[in-house]
Amino acid sequence: MPDVIRAGIVVTGTEVITGRIADANGPWVSERLAELGVEVAHILIVADRPDDLEAALRFLAAEEIDLIVTSGGLGPTADDLTAEVVGRFAGRELVLDPEMEAKVSAIIRAFARQRGWADEEALVASNRKQAMVPVGATALDPIGTAPGLVVPAGEQVVVVLPGPPRELQPMWPVALATPEVRAVLDRATALYGFTMRMFGVPESEVAQSLREIEADGVDLEAVEITTCLRRGEIEIDVRYRDETTAVAAEVRDGLVARHPSETFSLDGETIDEQVATLLRGHRLGLAESCSGGLLAARITDLPGASDYFNGSVVSYSNEAKADLLGVDPALIEARGAVSPEVAEAMAIGALERFGADLAVAITGVAGPGGGSEEKPVGYVCFHARLADGTALARDPVIPGDRSDIRERSALVAMHLLRVLLGGGQELET
Amino acid sequence: MPDVIRAGIVVTGTEVITGRIADANGPWVSERLAELGVEVAHILIVADRPDDLEAALRFLAAEEIDLIVTSGGLGPTADDLTAEVVGRFAGRELVLDPEMEAKVSAIIRAFARQRGWADEEALVASNRKQAMVPVGATALDPIGTAPGLVVPAGEQVVVVLPGPPRELQPMWPVALATPEVRAVLDRATALYGFTMRMFGVPESEVAQSLREIEADGVDLEAVEITTCLRRGEIEIDVRYRDETTAVAAEVRDGLVARHPSETFSLDGETIDEQVATLLRGHRLGLAESCSGGLLAARITDLPGASDYFNGSVVSYSNEAKADLLGVDPALIEARGAVSPEVAEAMAIGALERFGADLAVAITGVAGPGGGSEEKPVGYVCFHARLADGTALARDPVIPGDRSDIRERSALVAMHLLRVLLGGGQELET
Repeated sequence: MPDVIRAGIVVTGTEVITGRIADANGPWVSERLAELGVEVAHILIVADRPDDLEAALRFLAAEEIDLIVTSGGLGPTADDLTAEVVGRFAGRELVLDPEMEAKVSAIIRAFARQRGWADEEALVASNRKQAMVPVGATALDPIGTAPGLVVPAGEQVVVVLPGPPRELQPMWPVALATPEVRAVLDRATALYGFTMRMFGVPESEVAQSLREIEADGVDLEAVEITTCLRRGEIEIDVRYRDETTAVAAEVRDGLVARHPSETFSLDGETIDEQVATLLRGHRLGLAESCSGGLLAARITDLPGASDYFNGSVVSYSNEAKADLLGVDPALIEARGAVSPEVAEAMAIGALERFGADLAVAITGVAGPGGGSEEKPVGYVCFHARLADGTALARDPVIPGDRSDIRERSALVAMHLLRVLLGGGQELET
Repeated sequence: MPDVIRAGIVVTGTEVITGRIADANGPWVSERLAELGVEVAHILIVADRPDDLEAALRFLAAEEIDLIVTSGGLGPTADDLTAEVVGRFAGRELVLDPEMEAKVSAIIRAFARQRGWADEEALVASNRKQAMVPVGATALDPIGTAPGLVVPAGEQVVVVLPGPPRELQPMWPVALATPEVRAVLDRATALYGFTMRMFGVPESEVAQSLREIEADGVDLEAVEITTCLRRGEIEIDVRYRDETTAVAAEVRDGLVARHPSETFSLDGETIDEQVATLLRGHRLGLAESCSGGLLAARITDLPGASDYFNGSVVSYSNEAKADLLGVDPALIEARGAVSPEVAEAMAIGALERFGADLAVAITGVAGPGGGSEEKPVGYVCFHARLADGTALARDPVIPGDRSDIRERSALVAMHLLRVLLGGGQELET
């Protein structure tokens, strides 16, 4: 592909490299760059050691990277050294920017007053280093207390952003709008893309389908296809440029033709979003056992859930199934708490108790204990039911550990809801 | 500190660098290496492009890294090139290892038969490249289908591991046991550490306490202290070596003395583990509204929860609060669904309906809509109650967005449970 602009991302922070907190900035910046048609070649995570940071910058410079984005190390403490190291890398001395110093001081003073901190002047003094800017660089107004920087460095441009995602993300469009960054991005060819989602098909079958599509004469090399298993679903991301639009469409159509009932999203919409749309005008009640509230948590994750969600009974004990959902204890005794019959009774109970027109029940063996030969760990019974008695029932054995089985149970229930509400073809599990 | 062994980690995968899936391997390997006293200097994430991977390896070689660990790129497909690139980096030709080929073939055949795949021979052929091993390297038996490698490369040793965490993690101890890796690790000085956890104190106050401890003459530079805000709690990690054991103890004691009621864990034990222990012999019932099932999901995340957890009513609608928990609709009308009085009534209802001896109720405004001047978004009422009427109630305004407020609600409830069950001092919120 022509005119590929390559970027590198450097994430600083000892707490990140030690694995104590997960880095959110690398993936976030990478996604934003991909949307702009920029290829991210490397993400480097380095500790708060100036030599390691400088080595990372020099490595990216040697790798013909056009744009370098750093996150973190802009605070007021001694180990916040990014501005200094980037300045040295760019061969630009740091000087105090009086205008920025005034801005930072004003923020710190307001902050200190709001919190009732006495030692205002000491704070202002300790934050002075945040107003040190490499000569010839553009300082970006702080979102928190730390200004960002755009620093020309020979053939490269370095965008220096603060570590907290709440500061980094709002500063990103400001950095993009600077003439230095725009000059780099203007060289990139626009990249387009779409994301497809499938459920109920192994990744290997999707790989096989792609090989068949290629064998049919579609030039897969002309586009970028990423397939990954993400929380139990297959996500297929296709990126293309103007001249390969037709190839991307052939890939999409070829996959849909081979997996018509497993493909539930062509535009990246998630199952949660689809179910939320389908639930409008309904009243949903849930009855959960092995999923332990995860389905309710998933349904209520989206704002506005109270418009269609009445509630869930997480009936972990048999007594709770009987007392709160009206499941006949004799049925539990006869069939076992994990059985299609009890799942059905739980769904009927949820319909009644919540005054709902739609209910889903889940009961299963999440493990690690509690499995038997007949009902092994991972055996989960689902029953989705409308008030008119229309129902979908499934009882798969879900692979994986306790956490996988619980998460996947909630996912299967989401897809049963989708199918029951007419949002897709019959579900194969 | 003497004898510091430095490591670098290279994570491969286009789906990781594009941010489509979060990398779990870099942080996991980094934590394991830290436990062994190895300093991780760099984590690099690279796409599935051989040139970028080789550049990453050469960068680490130049950075005086003793041990390189790679993850991913060991599969059977064309873009799985790690073994080949590492071989080239180490100057070692790849040759077919007949013993490993037999092992991989046997795994593939068993796999294909189990799944009923017809094209067994094609599969075996396509997996042959997984048995290609650089001359002089040690192949590690596959956990899935891909063998790992330990490859001596000049001054460095490269440990090549598969990408799926389920394969990488069990292979890790096997790699450590190889003579090549042991020789590197034997040069590291043992590193010890402990993790403290606090709740209800801002990170800035902990930083201030550390400055006070330093002013009292404790040499903080002699140990490595990482403080981070993790899911609403402060986690303080202290790493030290034999000769700085006393310093680490002074740090710990100084922090506990300054934050006696906020410190709930000195040994890294999580609030979830503590609550699980405290709940033994009890029967817990929950009543959740704004947390939407997250507290139940958290309680049932640990195996064995059925020993003490009866269930939860996620009563999202007012009708559910009345019908399933027996909350008086007149009380909801008078005080509002989000009120300390309704939280108390929900807890009493949960005690009764679940036949529990302990209950927690949560009702709040998760937002983004639904807030008022009197009850803004983030206002959450908690009521934790024993059957004998002993109770703890709180109604803080929790900062953040919908997701933060929901997660934090479940966390506050966990800490109320801890305090109510005598697992800590009075809680300050």
